[in-house]
Amino acid sequence: MGQQKKLKLGAMIHGVGGGWEDWKHPRAITDASVNFDFYKREAQTAEAGKFDFAFIADSVHITPNSSPHYLNRFEPITILSALAAVTSRIGLVGTLTVSYSEPFTVARQFASLDHISGGRAGWNVVTSWLSGSANNYSKDEHPPHEKRYRIAQEHVNVVKGLWDSWEDDAFVRDKSTGVFFDPDKLHALNHKGEFFSVQGPLNIARSKQGQPVIFQAGTSEDGRNFAAKNADAIFVGHESIEEAKAYYQDIKRRAVSFGRAAEDISILPGIRPIIGRTEEEAERKYQETVQLVSIEKAIVALGRPFNDFDFSGYPLDEPFPDLGDLGANSQQGGSEKIKRIAKEQNLTLRQVALQFATPKGNFVGTPEKVADTIQQWVEEGASDGFIIGVGIPGGLQDFTELVVPILQERGLFRTEYESDTLRGHLGLTVPENRYAGAKAKAEALI
Amino acid sequence: MGQQKKLKLGAMIHGVGGGWEDWKHPRAITDASVNFDFYKREAQTAEAGKFDFAFIADSVHITPNSSPHYLNRFEPITILSALAAVTSRIGLVGTLTVSYSEPFTVARQFASLDHISGGRAGWNVVTSWLSGSANNYSKDEHPPHEKRYRIAQEHVNVVKGLWDSWEDDAFVRDKSTGVFFDPDKLHALNHKGEFFSVQGPLNIARSKQGQPVIFQAGTSEDGRNFAAKNADAIFVGHESIEEAKAYYQDIKRRAVSFGRAAEDISILPGIRPIIGRTEEEAERKYQETVQLVSIEKAIVALGRPFNDFDFSGYPLDEPFPDLGDLGANSQQGGSEKIKRIAKEQNLTLRQVALQFATPKGNFVGTPEKVADTIQQWVEEGASDGFIIGVGIPGGLQDFTELVVPILQERGLFRTEYESDTLRGHLGLTVPENRYAGAKAKAEALI
Repeated sequence: MGQQKKLKLGAMIHGVGGGWEDWKHPRAITDASVNFDFYKREAQTAEAGKFDFAFIADSVHITPNSSPHYLNRFEPITILSALAAVTSRIGLVGTLTVSYSEPFTVARQFASLDHISGGRAGWNVVTSWLSGSANNYSKDEHPPHEKRYRIAQEHVNVVKGLWDSWEDDAFVRDKSTGVFFDPDKLHALNHKGEFFSVQGPLNIARSKQGQPVIFQAGTSEDGRNFAAKNADAIFVGHESIEEAKAYYQDIKRRAVSFGRAAEDISILPGIRPIIGRTEEEAERKYQETVQLVSIEKAIVALGRPFNDFDFSGYPLDEPFPDLGDLGANSQQGGSEKIKRIAKEQNLTLRQVALQFATPKGNFVGTPEKVADTIQQWVEEGASDGFIIGVGIPGGLQDFTELVVPILQERGLFRTEYESDTLRGHLGLTVPENRYAGAKAKAEALI
Repeated sequence: MGQQKKLKLGAMIHGVGGGWEDWKHPRAITDASVNFDFYKREAQTAEAGKFDFAFIADSVHITPNSSPHYLNRFEPITILSALAAVTSRIGLVGTLTVSYSEPFTVARQFASLDHISGGRAGWNVVTSWLSGSANNYSKDEHPPHEKRYRIAQEHVNVVKGLWDSWEDDAFVRDKSTGVFFDPDKLHALNHKGEFFSVQGPLNIARSKQGQPVIFQAGTSEDGRNFAAKNADAIFVGHESIEEAKAYYQDIKRRAVSFGRAAEDISILPGIRPIIGRTEEEAERKYQETVQLVSIEKAIVALGRPFNDFDFSGYPLDEPFPDLGDLGANSQQGGSEKIKRIAKEQNLTLRQVALQFATPKGNFVGTPEKVADTIQQWVEEGASDGFIIGVGIPGGLQDFTELVVPILQERGLFRTEYESDTLRGHLGLTVPENRYAGAKAKAEALI
């Protein structure tokens, strides 16, 4: 099986975890979200496991009801830069919102991370769904969903344009001739668009991987199109392998319709594996996480994709309420899924809340069983790999020590890094600088 | 002399250097500005020398005429975060412009750096003087000088307010009671001002030093007032000890007039020492740097404080031209100084350009001589310490190995770190959280 396509693995490093009550786990480190030693240990564990990348999520608005991890956590650019200094191979991917950032600063910070890390940076492009974010950024309104994706497209275009400001051989640095750079290889962007006017050039060169890798997480109609057009890799959550297959086929089809090759995008569902040396141990560990979930916090968590909607006034044991188009302007894809599943399965509010707050059980079991499921998802076209999320404290260690070796034995995963850039890990080529390409094309026409 | 006041030392890490031709030095590392190993080595050298902090400068606009270091360099937040992971005691200070940033993001990134580094972060607040910066940030105009300082004051107020979002004992994290934090100790800022509307709260707690340290570099009238009101430390350039004394007295007087104690602000001139084991060796090293300077690049460099003004059309050997109020809206303090010195000393354009492009000779000599000059400046009230800039490649190593031990022997500088925070190094107290203070005051009144 040595010739078969390798799967991709990312490790989400997420402090005390995304769940409202994860921090109460007996082995949870309760200050993990602002504990650099914790982040360093997790990143180094993932690197020892030959993971493609570590992943840092983000958001820019909290309320007293936010999940403990969201309330007090590292900002992605800073923590990724710090991790760059204590790792050497693993990719470093972080979320940054286009709705509340300037393309010049985003381009600079990711390019700088890319240089510090020697070509290991990735940007997870998000549009932010919580309307309260606007209140932290002197904005009158949170842009509507469709507009957010138009902003996103222009923002990404500007950032990618700035990243090409310097051709790869622009810096001559010849002391004998006194030539530091070739001015013909420096390019201003001169962008003037609907949302941004950015002249450039950027004050940093391209790294050895050319440009940072673009991640995305779109599930709405706009989000899927944006991801299929722009993303090198997609981070997505699924309830089942059937849902995953449908999403996978849909995104690959859209990518092809935009003139891309299907294999240019890696689709990487987030999973929270729980590993036991026996089925009983795995089940016991799983129940430990299930028991942390209370209906009170599950109701709060359920409100999040609906812009922190307050469900507490609704009867718990009656059918899931009709919410109209609530959620369409926040996490559109996620909120639609909740409504659809509630309707299809005829669930009560309590059932919906608990279902979405409880860790899914489809990657719980012995190392062999989890490896089997992973193999099945990849072989049946449900994913190109996975982002391993926080299941239980020590879960990443369990996964790298117990599951990764099985995947390696089966020829499904690398045993050594073949590359030292994120682009290399993901099998992506270094993108040609747009200006060098244009020049080469013009010369070929002569 | 063990009881005397210790001086403060910062190390500017500045890639190939600020001078247009520094990179041509025979020992210069020509990619130093994007070379992480170089930055790491310099920071660790400064930490071995017990320096208070490392300092990273910045700007957000380049043209083909910009100095080689400006063209292609690390962004401060990223490089400081990476350095946090490979140092343990030294403070980490970086420049970030208030004219082209959002207070929420600035507050978050410095707070996150402060947590990653364990309380070692400092923010050098600048307003940006190059009008082209506006073109990189979708702005119609670069704000006028006076408005930039009004923006700066409001921006800093918002950032400091956000930094206090969480009282120091807000995070209870008690698994047995299920209480993660005390909601009474979480505070929204609800700021609505002339330039910014920021609700908060910030999604990160205070670090062990309370808040990052505020640096500033004001020399204009507005800049001096801003610095005297807000800064914990000031980075400034001087031509002579007389100028330094006048500045020192002026700032301390202004600080007192704003109700602060004179010792609450450290005034730290930037110097570029060149050390030789003999006077002859020092002079030879100095001449090596002087010889790098050409009149062509000196003229370009001179234009910078005047918003990259092009002096090339003016006759070199006639009196320095009358520029009217050129420069008043860019680097007002710096451009005024150039005009004043040209007039007072009756200099030609060539003389002015070469004087400002050539490294100053007042900290060139044997280790003893340089230590004597440093001691004189501090004892005579010209400074509270220094920021050691890039003199020649290896200059920081020379300074730490040869001059620091002399300063230590004389009781002028620490032999071991007494603290592990930047605030501790600078002798500043941890600022009380504004909300805790208010509450304590209210309780005292009952």
